[in-house]
Amino acid sequence: MATQGQVITCKAAVAYEPNKPLVIEDVQVDPPQAGEVRIKILFTALCHTDAYTWSGKDPEGLFPCILGHEAAGIVESVGEGVTEVQAGDHVIPCYQAECRECKFCKSGKTNLCGKVRGATGVGVMMNDRKSRFSVNGKPLYHFMGTSTFSQYTVLHDVSVAKIDPKAPLDKVCLLGCGVPTGLGAVWNTAKVEPGSIVAVFGLGTVGLAVAEGAKAAGASRIIGVDIDDRKFERAKKFGVTEFVNPKEHEKPIQQVLVDLTDGGVDYSFECIGNVSVMRAALECCHKGWGTSVIVGVAASGQEISTRPFQLVTGRVWKGTAFGGFKSRSQVPWLVEKYMKKEIKVDEYITHELTLAEINKAFDLLHEGDCLRCVLTVE
Amino acid sequence: MATQGQVITCKAAVAYEPNKPLVIEDVQVDPPQAGEVRIKILFTALCHTDAYTWSGKDPEGLFPCILGHEAAGIVESVGEGVTEVQAGDHVIPCYQAECRECKFCKSGKTNLCGKVRGATGVGVMMNDRKSRFSVNGKPLYHFMGTSTFSQYTVLHDVSVAKIDPKAPLDKVCLLGCGVPTGLGAVWNTAKVEPGSIVAVFGLGTVGLAVAEGAKAAGASRIIGVDIDDRKFERAKKFGVTEFVNPKEHEKPIQQVLVDLTDGGVDYSFECIGNVSVMRAALECCHKGWGTSVIVGVAASGQEISTRPFQLVTGRVWKGTAFGGFKSRSQVPWLVEKYMKKEIKVDEYITHELTLAEINKAFDLLHEGDCLRCVLTVE
Repeated sequence: MATQGQVITCKAAVAYEPNKPLVIEDVQVDPPQAGEVRIKILFTALCHTDAYTWSGKDPEGLFPCILGHEAAGIVESVGEGVTEVQAGDHVIPCYQAECRECKFCKSGKTNLCGKVRGATGVGVMMNDRKSRFSVNGKPLYHFMGTSTFSQYTVLHDVSVAKIDPKAPLDKVCLLGCGVPTGLGAVWNTAKVEPGSIVAVFGLGTVGLAVAEGAKAAGASRIIGVDIDDRKFERAKKFGVTEFVNPKEHEKPIQQVLVDLTDGGVDYSFECIGNVSVMRAALECCHKGWGTSVIVGVAASGQEISTRPFQLVTGRVWKGTAFGGFKSRSQVPWLVEKYMKKEIKVDEYITHELTLAEINKAFDLLHEGDCLRCVLTVE
Repeated sequence: MATQGQVITCKAAVAYEPNKPLVIEDVQVDPPQAGEVRIKILFTALCHTDAYTWSGKDPEGLFPCILGHEAAGIVESVGEGVTEVQAGDHVIPCYQAECRECKFCKSGKTNLCGKVRGATGVGVMMNDRKSRFSVNGKPLYHFMGTSTFSQYTVLHDVSVAKIDPKAPLDKVCLLGCGVPTGLGAVWNTAKVEPGSIVAVFGLGTVGLAVAEGAKAAGASRIIGVDIDDRKFERAKKFGVTEFVNPKEHEKPIQQVLVDLTDGGVDYSFECIGNVSVMRAALECCHKGWGTSVIVGVAASGQEISTRPFQLVTGRVWKGTAFGGFKSRSQVPWLVEKYMKKEIKVDEYITHELTLAEINKAFDLLHEGDCLRCVLTVE
């Protein structure tokens, strides 16, 4: 390609300061170094983690930066030593890397590859601990190792999942975060069995993906819990069989669920990021075996609590990141499942805009009827 | 037997009030009703749960009562419908029942049988919601469904484990609580694999049984954590390979352990009942897979806390009661293992006294060098 080895100037949405509108700028994107991949992003969605860092509440948020982590695109060029993808490959950026060599990858017990985290956690690339983005000569921080709110971005090769080129990128971009997180929480972390009773707290994209995963796993009852009644109709299409609005009950929601289920649910999932709800999700579990999975991300510094008796009497408290999926290995598999119509993706897309309209997209994210807004980037 | 169907008058240690010395009294023990078993207790040990309720800190403690739950004896007579034991059988009372019929027993996921809990939790027998003990015509509450600080006691049949009559009752009485709790926490709840790194917080009987269980499971390192240095020498005999005294470190103990183990332990066990230690035990676990099991019983009303990030990054928080062992089915198996010298029991017995000396035995329990004190009851 003509651009290989060259700095590319392209449009990106720059977050200069917390809580200030993103600015569409001409940014410079350096060529990929050894072990890096430069990707032309075609579509990106927005996720609450982007909004959380943008809000300034994330103490690890670094500005100015380019946000975005749920996207799809095509490899523009690769750096030295990159063998698993090449220019022209269709790919999904993965904020959770998979190197297949580190202690974590080799353990067989977790998807939390540690190889590039030391760099992605502080907004730079591992090779030279610097950014590949700049505007007017000033560097911009990377975000989550992905920075997909840009026409071009640079990733570590361990963070790039090569997918079927026939997959529609405007849809499968969602397989970069929210949908796999919900499905994987059920399939990998909780391992829900047929006949189980499941409670899902929060009926946004992740909660609905939990419901979808639970239905696929054969759950007998899938109880959706949300403070917005309007979410129930849509949730039915994803597998939710019953709806409980905590605002309509005087009793604590955990007690309401215990009463509804003759002792508690087999599995619960917190998909909001609220530490009080995390407690309720644990405590609504059945004595002896109920397992609660924390999927939502709480604000920094917040803590979860419960009486130890809850655990001593057999409840299990777990969490999940990217649903426990090994990103490079399993995102392509999820794409295949979508192509075979075994998992939903289109149904989560409620809005479509362009990168230029990104601030409007952030506003939409806070409205109840928005699940995912996909931005056309090209 | 001559006593069958008769009220038996015998010696028992009565706890009239919290924190007041127990009184050896002549008490009346009613005959067993339907589904009940009257047992002549020959040996009983003391456990910290007895001391906790006796101290008055247990809000569910009822007085006057007969404490005690780690014992062995011989069936004196059985009530109507009791088929699985008969007079003369050697038995271990089990505070955790196993009915094999309830939702819990049938689940295959837990040992927490619920059949008689509604009665044993409030100090009575299920049949008539009354006590079988009295002194001068006034009823005494049962304790944990066992009340073994008495020459005779009455249990629900679902709480009686029949064991090999060749087993020495003065030893295997310990298989009624502490030793199985520790072994089972490792084998049933955590399922420690060969090569694992294990941390044990608290090197009392339960902690040492955890170490023993971990050694049997093939753990590569077993790190004992205790604030009393003197406990290390003895702990080595139970499998502890390294010792850490939190008092000798300025850093939080979780950080000390993470540093010692290149990222954290695979499994940790809290065997004290201290909620701060429970947090440390979770947080010293390795990211991605570390599992912490709460074995100790915290004081009423106390809560555990951590940042949800600890769970989202792959740690698992669990608890265990009676080590997850199904009591009637598995206590006899543990007795067999002891007879085959596959598990230790004798080594936990540091003191031997008589029932008449029970107050001295309670004093011993608070001294560092006492593991188990076995009282001769007959």
